[in-house]
Amino acid sequence: MLLPQINDPQQLKSLSVEELATLAEEIRRFLIEKLTATGGHLGSNLGVVELTLALHYCYDSPRDKMIYDVGHQAYVHKILTGRQDRFDTLRKKDGLCGFVKRSESEHDVWEAGHSSTSLSAAMGMAMARDLKGEDNKVIAVIGDGALTGGMAFEALNHIGHERRKLMVILNDNEMSIAPNVGAMHNYLSKIRSDRHYLRAKDEVEGLLKKIPAIGGRLAKTAQNVKDSLKYMMVPGVLFEELGFTYLGPVDGHDMEKLIDTFHQADNVSGPVLVHVLTTKGKGYKPAETDFYKSHAISPYKIESGQSLKAVGNPMYTEVFGQTLIELGREDKRLIAVTPAMPGGSGLFPFAKEFPDRMIDVGIAEQHAATLCAALAMEGMKPVYAVYSTFMQRAYDQIVHDICRHNANVMFAIDRAGFVGADGETHQGVYDIAFMRHIPNMVMMMPKDENELRHMMKTALEYNDGPIAYRYPRIDGTGVDMDTELQVLPIGSWERLRPGDDYAVLACGPMVQVAEEAAEQLKREGIQLSVVNARFLKPLDSSMLLDLAHAGTGMIVLEEASQAGSLGSAVLEFYAEHEIYDARVHLMGVPDIFVEHGSIKEQRQQTGLTVEAVVSRIKTMKASSSFAYKTTSTS
Amino acid sequence: MLLPQINDPQQLKSLSVEELATLAEEIRRFLIEKLTATGGHLGSNLGVVELTLALHYCYDSPRDKMIYDVGHQAYVHKILTGRQDRFDTLRKKDGLCGFVKRSESEHDVWEAGHSSTSLSAAMGMAMARDLKGEDNKVIAVIGDGALTGGMAFEALNHIGHERRKLMVILNDNEMSIAPNVGAMHNYLSKIRSDRHYLRAKDEVEGLLKKIPAIGGRLAKTAQNVKDSLKYMMVPGVLFEELGFTYLGPVDGHDMEKLIDTFHQADNVSGPVLVHVLTTKGKGYKPAETDFYKSHAISPYKIESGQSLKAVGNPMYTEVFGQTLIELGREDKRLIAVTPAMPGGSGLFPFAKEFPDRMIDVGIAEQHAATLCAALAMEGMKPVYAVYSTFMQRAYDQIVHDICRHNANVMFAIDRAGFVGADGETHQGVYDIAFMRHIPNMVMMMPKDENELRHMMKTALEYNDGPIAYRYPRIDGTGVDMDTELQVLPIGSWERLRPGDDYAVLACGPMVQVAEEAAEQLKREGIQLSVVNARFLKPLDSSMLLDLAHAGTGMIVLEEASQAGSLGSAVLEFYAEHEIYDARVHLMGVPDIFVEHGSIKEQRQQTGLTVEAVVSRIKTMKASSSFAYKTTSTS
Repeated sequence: MLLPQINDPQQLKSLSVEELATLAEEIRRFLIEKLTATGGHLGSNLGVVELTLALHYCYDSPRDKMIYDVGHQAYVHKILTGRQDRFDTLRKKDGLCGFVKRSESEHDVWEAGHSSTSLSAAMGMAMARDLKGEDNKVIAVIGDGALTGGMAFEALNHIGHERRKLMVILNDNEMSIAPNVGAMHNYLSKIRSDRHYLRAKDEVEGLLKKIPAIGGRLAKTAQNVKDSLKYMMVPGVLFEELGFTYLGPVDGHDMEKLIDTFHQADNVSGPVLVHVLTTKGKGYKPAETDFYKSHAISPYKIESGQSLKAVGNPMYTEVFGQTLIELGREDKRLIAVTPAMPGGSGLFPFAKEFPDRMIDVGIAEQHAATLCAALAMEGMKPVYAVYSTFMQRAYDQIVHDICRHNANVMFAIDRAGFVGADGETHQGVYDIAFMRHIPNMVMMMPKDENELRHMMKTALEYNDGPIAYRYPRIDGTGVDMDTELQVLPIGSWERLRPGDDYAVLACGPMVQVAEEAAEQLKREGIQLSVVNARFLKPLDSSMLLDLAHAGTGMIVLEEASQAGSLGSAVLEFYAEHEIYDARVHLMGVPDIFVEHGSIKEQRQQTGLTVEAVVSRIKTMKASSSFAYKTTSTS
Repeated sequence: MLLPQINDPQQLKSLSVEELATLAEEIRRFLIEKLTATGGHLGSNLGVVELTLALHYCYDSPRDKMIYDVGHQAYVHKILTGRQDRFDTLRKKDGLCGFVKRSESEHDVWEAGHSSTSLSAAMGMAMARDLKGEDNKVIAVIGDGALTGGMAFEALNHIGHERRKLMVILNDNEMSIAPNVGAMHNYLSKIRSDRHYLRAKDEVEGLLKKIPAIGGRLAKTAQNVKDSLKYMMVPGVLFEELGFTYLGPVDGHDMEKLIDTFHQADNVSGPVLVHVLTTKGKGYKPAETDFYKSHAISPYKIESGQSLKAVGNPMYTEVFGQTLIELGREDKRLIAVTPAMPGGSGLFPFAKEFPDRMIDVGIAEQHAATLCAALAMEGMKPVYAVYSTFMQRAYDQIVHDICRHNANVMFAIDRAGFVGADGETHQGVYDIAFMRHIPNMVMMMPKDENELRHMMKTALEYNDGPIAYRYPRIDGTGVDMDTELQVLPIGSWERLRPGDDYAVLACGPMVQVAEEAAEQLKREGIQLSVVNARFLKPLDSSMLLDLAHAGTGMIVLEEASQAGSLGSAVLEFYAEHEIYDARVHLMGVPDIFVEHGSIKEQRQQTGLTVEAVVSRIKTMKASSSFAYKTTSTS
């Protein structure tokens, strides 16, 4: 075994190409075995084993900067840079991060989680290098899916113009999370299939010699014909036109060819794009054949790839997907729009039944939002199905194109709240704070999966502008499901439990936390009122006034940024109504980025638990009994 | 005169091509004359006179959808659709909007203000058309500058893949607001200059006939040669590769050629891109030659194009630009990054002195932000100079790439607050609300242009992560300028005026409003304390505690979204400290989009004036004297 001896990429330099190939196979076995227990991005990493080895063989990390787009395909990089022994902790609290992480290693120079940032990062590092007069290499590894994100194009446009020395490795596996869509994908497919272009080169030169020598007026034209032949021999004309030297396509599992191509790239001045063809899941049958499962997986059986995840209640995501079909049957104007997440968003069943009304735009959150605005303005009822964290990319389009037009766009915001193992880049804790200040927006969050269904109906029937429902990345509560869908009055909250002493206003899964806290406090003689604050905007004014007039203190409990979210909205409401005795306590996500772990651990870390609510109420009772009484008797 | 008789685009259909050309000249004169008085986007509109006429001549608005990217080049469209008589009110309160505006006309089908949204809009409208079984045309007019925005590429990628029938008109005037940068621009320039490609077409076909007939193994190669010739005859190969039929380039001031090309485009199935070459400012010498001034201008002298704007105190923008030079001399790591706004952001003087440290990335707000993160991580000190409203495009990159990396990026947020004539698409009123909840962010706003300079110094010396200063689109206060720059303690506020009764916490230009209100109230015996809340994050805890302990009521006054901004932060602070008697009143921008007008009118509309503060304090005094007294004496 070679692998156990590799603790530093420098050790690769002395290996032969054959030994590197052997090492590749050892790494594959390592990944397949380790990930059975931890889960993780298996397919992407199996696809880049040779590529990562070749990079570390040819270049000198961390002096040369290796930037992995998204960063979920950096497991091999982690293995080669001294982190083999930590793979049992992958994606667990205080364990190895599933993405590139600077605090783990000096070899990790750029963190991500969202796609399409690597080219901008590479350009920044190349500029800084040049300004400092240094001469290290800068290398970005980007997938074909990530290349369709708009910011990647913005960076290509800038890089191709400035022509600094840097290398872009286009890791083309013909799919991102879902099979890729888009014209760029079609273009890359054409290159993949038109390999005869490469073989034809010699033949073309032979042919050219047969064209009789031409003088005079036609000479220029003849030269043009010759020039134009470059398009035949250089398949990456699109990249060439944008200022890159294109090399490839090269087989990403052929170590020798990869190394050769990198040497060739080193001799090019200005930016180079190396087009590398890889197979996602390479070497592990279940991952090669089932690309959806092979992207990010739970722990699994090694022989079959079958998930070991216990079967629980249906996830919110699944309830969303099923309910959308019901609504789609009812209303032909309903259209689902997803930025490359048809599977993750639970849209496959809808896509199967309504292929014409299912739009996957690729990794393009901005375009998706504005497309929805236009669809709505033409009388359609688009649902923008998007993860909370990725919706951050569409903030401007939500303000400028959807809300300003007051377009009837529905938002299905999945992964709202903590997301667990994906960690800080993927937490869905900002959407309330970045959406509730936008005029015309209506926002909801259901206490359970049954209420989600009613909210979806409510959104479909609402015709006064944009309306959003957000739901978490967890299993539902297992509640009984109503068959008849109801329209909820806009801005109406639900008082789930009366109480004289204190109240908790909670949304989403925090409602259940509040209920459990209430049960516990009841046993101690404290009557906690629980309110399902299911509308985050607009608020339920009359209930808020009632609660304030009761004169008791209250907690606003939310799995969202404490700054700017529901709690903040409640405070603003009372300020506006000049009510100063509402005694609102905020319990939300504090002003930190919350790292990977289980959702349960993330809630514990941030104090969003039954115990924390119980304890806070007791503290309120103890500390405020004097102050509260004096105020209320005055 | 033909123009006065045109009230509806249908009337154009009966005109001859010669009459259309005459009309074009009349429209030019109309624009030049009208805009001397109102100001506006003169250059862009002079450039599209023939193009707009040809579109309305060939197509059938509003049945056929005409979508203008950004929408500032739609004056001609407004003239032709019945709004000639309202041009005296252009960009004034309750007058004609400077952009496309649906409430003005059924011919206005898509509003914008930010660039690069038109292709997504066109795709949405084409999809809706097809789903509804209709057959209208959909036409997007987009400038070459706007084409570099990432979301435009996301849309191209989607359109080229789906191949629905729609027309993209690339209005190529070789510049957006500033001369364009980027590889796409270089590519378009190449097409412009390689016109012999077009002329060569016949000659090439002649040449091909001279190639002897070839059989056998070489036949395929010969066919490839012939195929490849399409690249010679079709200069827009990049667009062709992305799935479009490319037509052009066509002279955008030749009415007959435009009409011919549109007819040709109508016969193409799938998406067509028509490349139209126009001259910004066409027909008005000062606008043709001075492209910066010709973009958006103030009222001007008709002979010279010279601005009639009165010379006032230097604008904040200018102070920023000048101070940046001082800091650039002091610190070689300082780099300025702008997304296509070198002029608007006051960066020309800096660019002149430090050309290597001035980066214009084109219209690419996302890339600019992530580029800054990478520059910072490599030891540079980048300043991201950006308008508040355009920074909305970079929200995700600010969260994911800058703040999560805790990178030392400085933000110079210009146009913070109301912007006047540009109106609702450009208001800079959300940046506090969408930035303050992001961990690691520090945010400031100066009370005057002198303090801006100290904040710039403070930001440069700060090395603990991202730090922003925001400033308004107005002239400075004319305050004396310190020559020695100071570093402000992070999170420190300034008590400008002691007072016993009430306090106003204000930021930016609102500090002056508060001061004036205090002066007025003083004459009536009310001592208003004024606090310059110059740090929006972190807050000045000790001052907030002091103010609360004084037991008096306070107003938080800000030219920013009342939801989620400074006022909201103050409320959260008191809630966290369990202080319930601070009696905070919020005065900010209410939950509406504020339309065009003067900044003064926008402040009046939203109650951010001296009078409003005075009146609010008096109301507070009247209504709370009883309640307040009872609480404080209890």
